[in-house]
Amino acid sequence: MKANQIVLPLEELPKNWYNIAPDLPEQLPPPKEPEGGPSRMEFLGETMIHECLKQEASLDRWIPIPEGIRELYIQAGRPRPLYRARRLENHLGLKKARLYYKREDLSPTGSHKVNTALAQAYFAAEEGKTTLVTETGAGQWGSALSYAARLMGLQCRVFWVRAVYEWKSDRRTFMKMLGATVHASPSKETEVGQQFLRKNPKHQGSLGIAVSEGLEKANLEEDSVYCLGSVLNHVLIQQSIIGLETIEQFKRVDDEPDLIVGCLGGGSNFGGIALPFAGEVLKGKRECSFLAAQSEAAPNLVKGEYRYDFGDVAEKTPLLKMYTLGHRTEMVPIRADGLRYHAAAPLISTLRNQGLVKAVAYPADERLVMEAARIFFQNEGWLIAPESSYAVRAGIDEALKAEKASQEKVICMNISGHGFLDIEAYRDKLNIE
Amino acid sequence: MKANQIVLPLEELPKNWYNIAPDLPEQLPPPKEPEGGPSRMEFLGETMIHECLKQEASLDRWIPIPEGIRELYIQAGRPRPLYRARRLENHLGLKKARLYYKREDLSPTGSHKVNTALAQAYFAAEEGKTTLVTETGAGQWGSALSYAARLMGLQCRVFWVRAVYEWKSDRRTFMKMLGATVHASPSKETEVGQQFLRKNPKHQGSLGIAVSEGLEKANLEEDSVYCLGSVLNHVLIQQSIIGLETIEQFKRVDDEPDLIVGCLGGGSNFGGIALPFAGEVLKGKRECSFLAAQSEAAPNLVKGEYRYDFGDVAEKTPLLKMYTLGHRTEMVPIRADGLRYHAAAPLISTLRNQGLVKAVAYPADERLVMEAARIFFQNEGWLIAPESSYAVRAGIDEALKAEKASQEKVICMNISGHGFLDIEAYRDKLNIE
Repeated sequence: MKANQIVLPLEELPKNWYNIAPDLPEQLPPPKEPEGGPSRMEFLGETMIHECLKQEASLDRWIPIPEGIRELYIQAGRPRPLYRARRLENHLGLKKARLYYKREDLSPTGSHKVNTALAQAYFAAEEGKTTLVTETGAGQWGSALSYAARLMGLQCRVFWVRAVYEWKSDRRTFMKMLGATVHASPSKETEVGQQFLRKNPKHQGSLGIAVSEGLEKANLEEDSVYCLGSVLNHVLIQQSIIGLETIEQFKRVDDEPDLIVGCLGGGSNFGGIALPFAGEVLKGKRECSFLAAQSEAAPNLVKGEYRYDFGDVAEKTPLLKMYTLGHRTEMVPIRADGLRYHAAAPLISTLRNQGLVKAVAYPADERLVMEAARIFFQNEGWLIAPESSYAVRAGIDEALKAEKASQEKVICMNISGHGFLDIEAYRDKLNIE
Repeated sequence: MKANQIVLPLEELPKNWYNIAPDLPEQLPPPKEPEGGPSRMEFLGETMIHECLKQEASLDRWIPIPEGIRELYIQAGRPRPLYRARRLENHLGLKKARLYYKREDLSPTGSHKVNTALAQAYFAAEEGKTTLVTETGAGQWGSALSYAARLMGLQCRVFWVRAVYEWKSDRRTFMKMLGATVHASPSKETEVGQQFLRKNPKHQGSLGIAVSEGLEKANLEEDSVYCLGSVLNHVLIQQSIIGLETIEQFKRVDDEPDLIVGCLGGGSNFGGIALPFAGEVLKGKRECSFLAAQSEAAPNLVKGEYRYDFGDVAEKTPLLKMYTLGHRTEMVPIRADGLRYHAAAPLISTLRNQGLVKAVAYPADERLVMEAARIFFQNEGWLIAPESSYAVRAGIDEALKAEKASQEKVICMNISGHGFLDIEAYRDKLNIE
């Protein structure tokens, strides 16, 4: 029997996260204070989770996953299966290329974001905090944090860009059903929100305003902490569970990937699957390439500059050395909203700078990527998130290229989330009635 | 580490389905022709899958699952985990009662219906058919059959009650994205559809009309077969994979259920989890009770009569001996639309008549059950289908009863599907903004 599903027994759920920092050929450029204004580091030191800040600067290669978090991971359905995409291979007529995919779409909130959300909620509770505060754009991060907070018995407060809050009624209900307090931003909850509302009571909001509101609230309330869902080192460390499982799963089928493909906005799912493999490449233990699939709406790795920039529009973060389009760049709306971010995580950016990570950007009309999602759905049977469709598009393109060159190639794609809450995007982009 | 997830290795995916028919204390009352009209059996013999009709009348206890179907089951993510609901137990303050749940919500189309859809698609292809035809009400069955057809390289034609077709745009896109042809019923595709449209061009349709259209189409086209998703013996046999896996999973944690709970409309998910356990009870190999959770909108097992009735409003099926409310009974709309069926499957009905299956019905306003879904979501972290919330409600109620009586009790609930496509129902019933 050909079993396309490759599982990992519960007992083999990794016991440590992987931190690539000590294995980098050059030290990761540290965060910097901007000239003028208050100290961003001090501010974040007061508003964020201490254990996360510790991981942020850690040079330990292996960071133990507390047993409590491992239990939460198992509750959330980990380890997640790796699949051999034999059905897709047959459809594409591949003889030389082999395709695999990792199933983060099986997440309880529909995306890989729970991997870090659970860790952050656990550490916040350990530090005696009672409330997690964050902002959300597309809604995946807000959903994941609402879920994690509830499982740890914490409150969750989400500031959500008003335009999206009003439109995505299902995600809104999802968060509220979990007990989260979800504010349309700008809101009356904060000084900064009130300022914007005075100017325009129907202000549609922006991610920058939502970040500012969340930080203000988290900073004012003693028992609150601010949580971030991408870009930062500790997020990528906590996401490394994806790649660590995948390494073990490849061993079980006695195969090895030549190329890891993931979609990339800020870099958390891409880093999650890629960095454990990249670490082994850097140590000379394996050969493997890495490809980030982006949108031309936000091609930070493809067209960005490698320089210090703010992580947010509101300039509340320290300066981070990243491939960036500029933190005030306006980006056209796309359905894969999770990919609309101006810069790539520092850890990914340094690897890009060293030539280990490559990137490709697909047109912002998204027809090519959505078509890849349909092909994947019709052959593998899983409806994936619009964001994940970029990874699948790139995976298919690379497989066809290898095939044309009669080159044997093993490609592993990361499926960052499911598409059950994004069906309208497919209806629209694929012209389905 | 407390692992709440109980997996079954791929190698232990069952190799046979279980058929309870030979283990029944009394022979199952056979289907009968109604007085007058054409032979229903002959008609179905011409329009349905031969292997399914063979299973329908089989007295073999074990029916081998072809390797090709086992591969499809693994592709679709089987075996599915069983969970110990420790978090829910803690929330409810249970000391004596233990709760478990089986995760059919991990299905690619969001419900347990894929278990029989894949089997039917496989057998249809083996018999040289090219097109699967069916009707759908809530849309779960249409989605599952669209999926299965596509994975087997077959066409799928779904006749969908027009009122629901127009309203459930996401499920409609889901089916069409899989390549299915979905007709709003009544349609111009059939004689019977045209008749209704001539009388009223905006006819909103009914399940009866959709069944009639599907049967007409399947009967006229040589290469088409008609597929049914519940009630019939072969459907319950193919769903037995749920209970068979669950039996093995309980062995792995050295525990045994005292009570199996599932929601019940026609009986396919309930039969799927319950019948393998019930068979062992009948053979004196275990003690266990069975509870079907229903809606007062369709309390067929609670208030129905045990007599011969048609399986469909259109009177196209033979007469089946079932607990029935009458095949022409009007039922009020509920959000758990999959539970709105006038009769319970013959196999479940005979066990009810023998006292082995009990039933409970919850108010049609659905607040009690939806609240149970929220409690489940907030504690176990999984958003379940409105239908499944009936099983969870009954499971919680029974656990609390046992606890009050200081009675040790192990309860296993079947989670028939996920709720990602039904969030509006929760928004409405739980008064969430």
